[in-house]
Amino acid sequence: MNLSEWVERFNGGDVRALSRIISRVENSNGLIPAELKPIFSRTGGAYRIGVTGPPGAGKSTLVDWLCSLYRQQNLTVGVIAVDPTSPFSGGALLGDRIRMTRAGIDPGVFIRSMATRGTLGGLAESAMDAADILDAFGKDIVILETVGVGQSELDVARAADTTVVVLVPESGDGVQAMKAGLMEISDIFVLNKADRPMAERAALEIEGALELKQTRADGWKIPVLMTVANKGEGLPALVDTLKMHFDAMKNSGSLEEKRKDRRRERIRKVVERELRRRLWSEERFAMLTEEIENGDNPFEIAADIIGDFEGKE
Amino acid sequence: MNLSEWVERFNGGDVRALSRIISRVENSNGLIPAELKPIFSRTGGAYRIGVTGPPGAGKSTLVDWLCSLYRQQNLTVGVIAVDPTSPFSGGALLGDRIRMTRAGIDPGVFIRSMATRGTLGGLAESAMDAADILDAFGKDIVILETVGVGQSELDVARAADTTVVVLVPESGDGVQAMKAGLMEISDIFVLNKADRPMAERAALEIEGALELKQTRADGWKIPVLMTVANKGEGLPALVDTLKMHFDAMKNSGSLEEKRKDRRRERIRKVVERELRRRLWSEERFAMLTEEIENGDNPFEIAADIIGDFEGKE
Repeated sequence: MNLSEWVERFNGGDVRALSRIISRVENSNGLIPAELKPIFSRTGGAYRIGVTGPPGAGKSTLVDWLCSLYRQQNLTVGVIAVDPTSPFSGGALLGDRIRMTRAGIDPGVFIRSMATRGTLGGLAESAMDAADILDAFGKDIVILETVGVGQSELDVARAADTTVVVLVPESGDGVQAMKAGLMEISDIFVLNKADRPMAERAALEIEGALELKQTRADGWKIPVLMTVANKGEGLPALVDTLKMHFDAMKNSGSLEEKRKDRRRERIRKVVERELRRRLWSEERFAMLTEEIENGDNPFEIAADIIGDFEGKE
Repeated sequence: MNLSEWVERFNGGDVRALSRIISRVENSNGLIPAELKPIFSRTGGAYRIGVTGPPGAGKSTLVDWLCSLYRQQNLTVGVIAVDPTSPFSGGALLGDRIRMTRAGIDPGVFIRSMATRGTLGGLAESAMDAADILDAFGKDIVILETVGVGQSELDVARAADTTVVVLVPESGDGVQAMKAGLMEISDIFVLNKADRPMAERAALEIEGALELKQTRADGWKIPVLMTVANKGEGLPALVDTLKMHFDAMKNSGSLEEKRKDRRRERIRKVVERELRRRLWSEERFAMLTEEIENGDNPFEIAADIIGDFEGKE
């Protein structure tokens, strides 16, 4: 089957075509085939939720519940679970968990795991692509789930309409999270495993840290919710709060702003990738190699190459 | 004092000027001042050693000992300790350790810590810049130390002549490390905390995993050393092995090859950064914003912007 036929099936709602097209874009190394480009015009229908937090906070169980609850509302869901890998933990940071047991058998839920190493930047772009494709496919809800390890939680916040940061009581993460600037990216805090000792205190700590600048310019007051995801406790309240945040953003116009910013960043990336491709033609790469043999100052060589690029373009 | 005066002092071996110039470059956002560019022609004298491994493997203690042992040989040492930060562990992954207690008071050892979050790519470039500056300053040995969290260990391998991967017995890291392709970047494995139970077995496991493709094209056989860094045990053997690797690379010509690749990558980065800067002029950024308002296909907008850039250059 050729790509146009896959696109046709995609347009008809075929899940296999959806999966195939995500893979095709993921492996395209930025050179999106022309047949697939129109798909990216059809975004904007989905509500994108980012879920991030430390390893072991229970993010995947929580996401699993969100899927179930949204399905009960007859909404369709797509999940992109990004697992940046550490070479020392061997594979995904989250380990080889069995995931999405309940949601996984529901045809209204599409789940895609993305794991790689050595290309965190590329991974973020792939996740964005996949979110766009799920959006264009007609999913009502797109959830981006990622473990926070320095860069990934920023990427997820950039890709989402609403960002949920999941913490647990005993780790003392709350205050650290504040220090690390997570407050800036988080729209909703969830204290999961709230049946454990110290949960109340941890929630108070987070609320205390939020106190000073809790209210955003758009009037949104960052809430701290308590959940016990493996028992499903507190999840309906999370769904309600997400809806409240979505409505608040829509009314204040900040949703539109956020989405414009996102599109802008996305196009910047596309432009830079394309320019990089043109820059490093075979001849120019050979020129680089040759100049290095002669051992000049790197900045002078760089200036030569830019001069050559500008001359020829 | 202006920058030229700092460069003069730098050339005279002033450590404060060294520190100042590293900071200046680190904060330059890629726009290296003209006065500083000549410094980057004077690299190539230092032997660059990368040290990577999981948190808690004892890397900083080991690096501390390397400093002492090299000083005993009357070699000068510069250390760049890169700590990518996690928002959930609060600050550096390695925690707020007291580091370099012995080496830190020796004027022949210069230590620079770099920690940031959200800019892993930028951090790698800053570390490369700092390594070049230490090299140009006349350091005989430049050590790049970083915790391995997916990308950083690849960056350190790219920046170093020799890469040492430090593991510990109990974590079962050995086989995982092999799986994750660390064998490709590692020139020497160190099994630290080798006085713990299971150390022998862990070493055998790593050796077993190395067995199949242990010998590189250049004839180097990746050794597995056992150390107890907090007692200084096995460190002299590591220094000897580093020397052997350096000599082997020099004789086979692979050192020169490696350094050429490094320069090439470096220049690529410089060129791309500069081109990005020119691309996003204020007018072109405004154009991007305007087109987004009209809500076209992102790939069409990207094509427009590239067309505009090419036309004007």
